[in-house]
Amino acid sequence: MEFQPFPQGVHPNTSEPAMEPMASEPSVPIGTAFADLLLQGPEHPSLWNDLTGMFRKAFRWRGADKRFTLSVYVMSVLQGLFPILDWWKTYNLKFFRSDLMAGLTLASLSIPQSIGYATLAKLDPQYGLYTSVVPPLVYAVTGSSREIAIGPVAIVSLLLSSMIQKIVDPSVDPAFYRKMVFTVTFLTGVFQFAFGLFRLGFLVDFLSHAAIVGFMGGAAIVIGLQQLKGLLGLSHFTNRTDVVSVTKAVWVSVHETWHPENVFIGCSFFMFILAMRFIGRKYKKLFWVSAIAPVLSVALSTLFVYATRADKHGVKIIQKVNSGINASSVEQIDLKGGYAAECAKIALVCAVIALTEAVAVGRSFSAINGYRLDGNKEMVAMGFMNIAGSLSSCYVATGSFSRTAVNFAAGCKTTVSNIIMAATVMVALELLTKLLYYTPVSILASIILSALPGLINVQEVCFLWKVDKMDFLTCMGSFLGVLFGSVEIGLSVALLVSFAKIIIQSIWPQVEILGRLQGTEIFCNVKQYPVVHETPTVLTVRIETSFLCFVNSSSIKEKIMGWVTDEREAFRSVVLDMSNVVNMDTSGLAALEELHKELACLGIQMAIAKPGWQVIHKMKLARLVDGIGEGWFFLTVGEAVEACLANKAGNALECC
Amino acid sequence: MEFQPFPQGVHPNTSEPAMEPMASEPSVPIGTAFADLLLQGPEHPSLWNDLTGMFRKAFRWRGADKRFTLSVYVMSVLQGLFPILDWWKTYNLKFFRSDLMAGLTLASLSIPQSIGYATLAKLDPQYGLYTSVVPPLVYAVTGSSREIAIGPVAIVSLLLSSMIQKIVDPSVDPAFYRKMVFTVTFLTGVFQFAFGLFRLGFLVDFLSHAAIVGFMGGAAIVIGLQQLKGLLGLSHFTNRTDVVSVTKAVWVSVHETWHPENVFIGCSFFMFILAMRFIGRKYKKLFWVSAIAPVLSVALSTLFVYATRADKHGVKIIQKVNSGINASSVEQIDLKGGYAAECAKIALVCAVIALTEAVAVGRSFSAINGYRLDGNKEMVAMGFMNIAGSLSSCYVATGSFSRTAVNFAAGCKTTVSNIIMAATVMVALELLTKLLYYTPVSILASIILSALPGLINVQEVCFLWKVDKMDFLTCMGSFLGVLFGSVEIGLSVALLVSFAKIIIQSIWPQVEILGRLQGTEIFCNVKQYPVVHETPTVLTVRIETSFLCFVNSSSIKEKIMGWVTDEREAFRSVVLDMSNVVNMDTSGLAALEELHKELACLGIQMAIAKPGWQVIHKMKLARLVDGIGEGWFFLTVGEAVEACLANKAGNALECC
Repeated sequence: MEFQPFPQGVHPNTSEPAMEPMASEPSVPIGTAFADLLLQGPEHPSLWNDLTGMFRKAFRWRGADKRFTLSVYVMSVLQGLFPILDWWKTYNLKFFRSDLMAGLTLASLSIPQSIGYATLAKLDPQYGLYTSVVPPLVYAVTGSSREIAIGPVAIVSLLLSSMIQKIVDPSVDPAFYRKMVFTVTFLTGVFQFAFGLFRLGFLVDFLSHAAIVGFMGGAAIVIGLQQLKGLLGLSHFTNRTDVVSVTKAVWVSVHETWHPENVFIGCSFFMFILAMRFIGRKYKKLFWVSAIAPVLSVALSTLFVYATRADKHGVKIIQKVNSGINASSVEQIDLKGGYAAECAKIALVCAVIALTEAVAVGRSFSAINGYRLDGNKEMVAMGFMNIAGSLSSCYVATGSFSRTAVNFAAGCKTTVSNIIMAATVMVALELLTKLLYYTPVSILASIILSALPGLINVQEVCFLWKVDKMDFLTCMGSFLGVLFGSVEIGLSVALLVSFAKIIIQSIWPQVEILGRLQGTEIFCNVKQYPVVHETPTVLTVRIETSFLCFVNSSSIKEKIMGWVTDEREAFRSVVLDMSNVVNMDTSGLAALEELHKELACLGIQMAIAKPGWQVIHKMKLARLVDGIGEGWFFLTVGEAVEACLANKAGNALECC
Repeated sequence: MEFQPFPQGVHPNTSEPAMEPMASEPSVPIGTAFADLLLQGPEHPSLWNDLTGMFRKAFRWRGADKRFTLSVYVMSVLQGLFPILDWWKTYNLKFFRSDLMAGLTLASLSIPQSIGYATLAKLDPQYGLYTSVVPPLVYAVTGSSREIAIGPVAIVSLLLSSMIQKIVDPSVDPAFYRKMVFTVTFLTGVFQFAFGLFRLGFLVDFLSHAAIVGFMGGAAIVIGLQQLKGLLGLSHFTNRTDVVSVTKAVWVSVHETWHPENVFIGCSFFMFILAMRFIGRKYKKLFWVSAIAPVLSVALSTLFVYATRADKHGVKIIQKVNSGINASSVEQIDLKGGYAAECAKIALVCAVIALTEAVAVGRSFSAINGYRLDGNKEMVAMGFMNIAGSLSSCYVATGSFSRTAVNFAAGCKTTVSNIIMAATVMVALELLTKLLYYTPVSILASIILSALPGLINVQEVCFLWKVDKMDFLTCMGSFLGVLFGSVEIGLSVALLVSFAKIIIQSIWPQVEILGRLQGTEIFCNVKQYPVVHETPTVLTVRIETSFLCFVNSSSIKEKIMGWVTDEREAFRSVVLDMSNVVNMDTSGLAALEELHKELACLGIQMAIAKPGWQVIHKMKLARLVDGIGEGWFFLTVGEAVEACLANKAGNALECC
């Protein structure tokens, strides 16, 4: 097909604007024949239908569809729950080779990170490793992202420790603290499962992207500050996470006894990891260098400490790490105790943050590989894996951004790489835990520190400032909230600013004067298009809010009345373009009714153009359609304006 | 001008629908010549301009307007502040006669009501009378409503007593309680003045009509229950206002000693007032009968008690009422004490509720008399009058609905009726307070009770249920909150439900498929107009939210992608009608960008029709206009569809 310079039906030679819009004979057949349809909108679905519809969708039940038998239903549900049933048939040796390499690379990064994040979560190192075993295995059969790497992550580890510490101090009663961790993990899984099942995925959107950027940045700095304990080899430290408390604690501790050997080991290996990462970035082929740098650091530093017996000179070491794979933790989950409500609150925050991170990670890599990820299915899988995890000594797992990037770079094909990784971690748990005895604590701090720069996104903050000041405010609110308050305060500030933004947007009186584009039936905002002409004697306005309600209806009415009374002589009719109004409440109805009455008092006719079906429905219920007159509802603004112009004689008829 | 059966430009004979929309040659000259204007929207006004604009408006300053000299400015400000400067020139004797009669009728109702409401506010009777002197006088020179009757009202009296009681118990330390009352009154005035000056009148709209209906109903029942104390002649009573506490307190007290004589007097005069009101309603000429019934009841019952010395047999009497007009209370206002913050909170609630009532009363009567009331000016006047009141021993005054109705029925012409009323009350304060010694307390209860039915609006509740279930929920929330919690709980519930309503409305994925009305350039919702035809291979959708933001953008994107992938073969282009979107945040931008990318992956072209200037502005900043391509932005949906149809060949060009 040849290229057309102008879209079909557009003739540049006829678009010459006529001098006077009224003079041009509008040749478009306006929908007069359909105007009677206007007032016969569809019935509003009942509340009951809305609710049952949600459940039907949740269970994918299509009711009376004949092609749809029970076995097909069961199979479709199973395939929905276990995507592995879809792809195992096409799995082959070539895929496995890729997945094996990716899985091994992933494991070499996972083992040191898991141990580090466990200390961040104030748990013994083995719990981090446990969390890299069961959740990845469960996700491998239930999840649909091919690239995501499952396991403990920094932000969720911080969230857990900072919030559960308020219930119990882990240094005082570690057994009870663990009990709380498993309970929170179980509830997190339940929430995530429920979100997915009932398609409440939109709840995750409540934390806007801007809020997340700020939160992540703040949390990264807080995590970094927490690492000062390990890096400086301090024994006493604050339980609080805000900058002020941590700085104070460091200041106090540094003036007591501390051992610079820890800093030396930590910083030198931190440099080593960063250098390796730089090489990995520069030469794409050597990406594995950055992936194995942490495990290499652990091995070298452990060897160094063992050889020099530096632990006798003040270098803090991990000491005993229990060997053996995950034990059951079923009996540790305590839903009946007095802390269930508190745990549920923490679990809700963890569930949302973990899902936000997992969905963001999954989506960004699925987009690269050109397939779509169903957010609700992902949530069900995440829920499954955290419930299973909580029963086998794991804490909350989710998709890690840094490890997913490594997995992807290593060429993973399916979730089998997660299985390989989990198997490798299991072997390590059985055989290598004894070797970790002499691993210095500061090396874990440096591994965590090296993962933080990825969480701070300055570029995005600049973008927010440039494009949307309110989003920038949300971002800074959550950033400063996390930094100077706590994670909960940061999240609350972000939520508050975000919702305030929606409400402010609804409040601002949104109404614009329209003018006709010369020679057409197109009516546009006169501010946006200065070339349009306002029709004399007819004030044409568009209500630019989708919900005409108590916060904006009276200011919109006032604004229109202001325009009318400012130039009272000029206008004989007012046309309201209601196309933008999707819904209205009784205050909106009252404002329209008052507007109609006040205009009638001034001898001005009111016409309504392009009302939506919900608006028509409510106006009918409130008898406002009769009040304004059925004849004054129009399908287009053009028709309404023409009718108003033709009505000059009728003005005197209506008056209050 | 002769009557035209069809509006100009509409030819019924040409509206015959063509069979195939594509086949008909669209003869309307589409605005191609103006399409380049689309991407050159006006600049976004800076934050600084927005703020200075608000102040300029507040002080009515028009800057460099030449006709506008300083003296004109001062005069216009003065006339704005003192509407009396406008109308005193045309005032005449005939007006005065009407106002005199209305003022005297009003006073006969005001005196007993003021005494009753003072007891409701837990103050001595004279404070109610004081409040009927200064505020009406101040309002008379500053207010612009001609009919409103100013003074103490039931709801605000209840609000004051129920909230200040939490600071100090009036039966324990009445002097300190009064101090708090005057402080709250002063701050209420300051808030009201500030609302009016800075044009924050919209803040009053935050309490939606539905919430007010529920709140008033609940408060009326609560006030009624409080009257049981006076009616039953009880000495001990609860300070709490909820139904459960009051019922318990009555139950306990009734089982101790009480005097049925009080009930007898109260009930018989309650019947008398109701009967008089019935007569007043039935015979419009006798409206004054209902207006003087309360004062008549007070006189008769006082005489009865004095004659029979019933106070010695258990009938509770008012006893001493201080004589003399308002004393200064300047030194009683305590803004430095520890309770200033608490007082400010109470004052904010009182200011909003008092303004809501005053503006509602003022507007409903100004509408009857056919003039417009400026809400902001009214707020300034209310602020003035409460500040002045607080300095002269008055508590919060506002417009009373029942007394305004009497004032109107008595034929008032201007605010001079309020002056007459205040003067009469002053005379009563000087001369008649001694006569009130024997007035039974139960008669005050019956006067308050008789004013309550007007506050309960069952008809309106039915209307809310019929038209808008969410508004009904708001109404019931505030009703039950006041009834079973407290006034603050009721108001909080109402606010919460109201704002939740706005947010829920924003969340719901609002996107509709459009179809072309055969033979026209009109595109409508296919659900609302089943006669329209969807264009084959082009999916035309309208985003029906005015703020594309984090809570709805991803679900809107998902919904569109769902439609596209459900019938992947069918669509080659997607046209987004963005006319409803007034603004968007960075999440909205990200969703559009993702949508464009995902569609490109499927080889589907995306076109954007009718974007608003703020949307264009932000899309430009985010470089999304370049991403989608300037050629894919259109002024109308019709153009976009034609361009998509013409583009069949170009599909293969773009792919991820």
